[in-house]
Amino acid sequence: MRVIGFDPGYGRLGFGVVDSQEGKWRLVSYGTIITHKDDAFLDRLKYIGDQIKELIDRFKPQEVSVEELFFQKNTKTAMKVAEARGVILYVCAQNNLPTFEYTPLQVKQSLTGYGKAEKQQIQEMVKLMLRLDKIPKPDDAADAIAIALTHIQNNKLFRH
Amino acid sequence: MRVIGFDPGYGRLGFGVVDSQEGKWRLVSYGTIITHKDDAFLDRLKYIGDQIKELIDRFKPQEVSVEELFFQKNTKTAMKVAEARGVILYVCAQNNLPTFEYTPLQVKQSLTGYGKAEKQQIQEMVKLMLRLDKIPKPDDAADAIAIALTHIQNNKLFRH
Repeated sequence: MRVIGFDPGYGRLGFGVVDSQEGKWRLVSYGTIITHKDDAFLDRLKYIGDQIKELIDRFKPQEVSVEELFFQKNTKTAMKVAEARGVILYVCAQNNLPTFEYTPLQVKQSLTGYGKAEKQQIQEMVKLMLRLDKIPKPDDAADAIAIALTHIQNNKLFRH
Repeated sequence: MRVIGFDPGYGRLGFGVVDSQEGKWRLVSYGTIITHKDDAFLDRLKYIGDQIKELIDRFKPQEVSVEELFFQKNTKTAMKVAEARGVILYVCAQNNLPTFEYTPLQVKQSLTGYGKAEKQQIQEMVKLMLRLDKIPKPDDAADAIAIALTHIQNNKLFRH
């Protein structure tokens, strides 16, 4: 099974593509979609949607894993991230991809078994699970890979 | 010029289509897109996007007017409305429609000249401006028409 994970954002949006076969995981690709703050927000949303579509066409994932948003304060930024997240979910739905959502807590618990794990611990687990030499950079991409792995971890309980 | 206005939401999403020609306004259509709470949120987002696309194809608006969101509290609802709003903006961008955003304050000021106008006053202005017998129902649709009229009002300053 091939999963694409997304770490939602509108300035930087991380993605990670992971294959899972017979209990083995392989990192296929990762990176960030970057939009520029000088551009109109609507153009940034359009760019994000178009790039998501390109990633789907290129990597042909079978399932999608997206982080759920939690914000302490209802800032304008939070609303914009949610709008970008809506675009991600919509483009995946347009492409008939089953999409799953995980909270930051679920990511921590799934990868480290510990709900209070630090970002660094999560990233180390990503490196270990995928047998990488280094932690993938930037952070948005590493987070997106962690979200993809979380879905694979949760999913295997229901498959044979 | 034909403008479609949207009052964002995910359970109920109002729309209103208004023509403006030589200083005269005409209400073309209005209504609500309704999604059901028993359906998965992702399916509701997809339905919203598909319906927006249908409205665009059917009414062929030249410009879009969307209300900006303001929430006192950062509830889960607020994030979901923002996600639905992202879908609206994205589908309009996909269709190359110039899209404009107005705050509730701008709607009040544009239609009544008074920033603290009540909802009822706004709805009365919608009725008057469009020479209707009754206030359009439901409220989401009336709000969407008000948002379309706000764009027409603001826009005419820049056109001849």
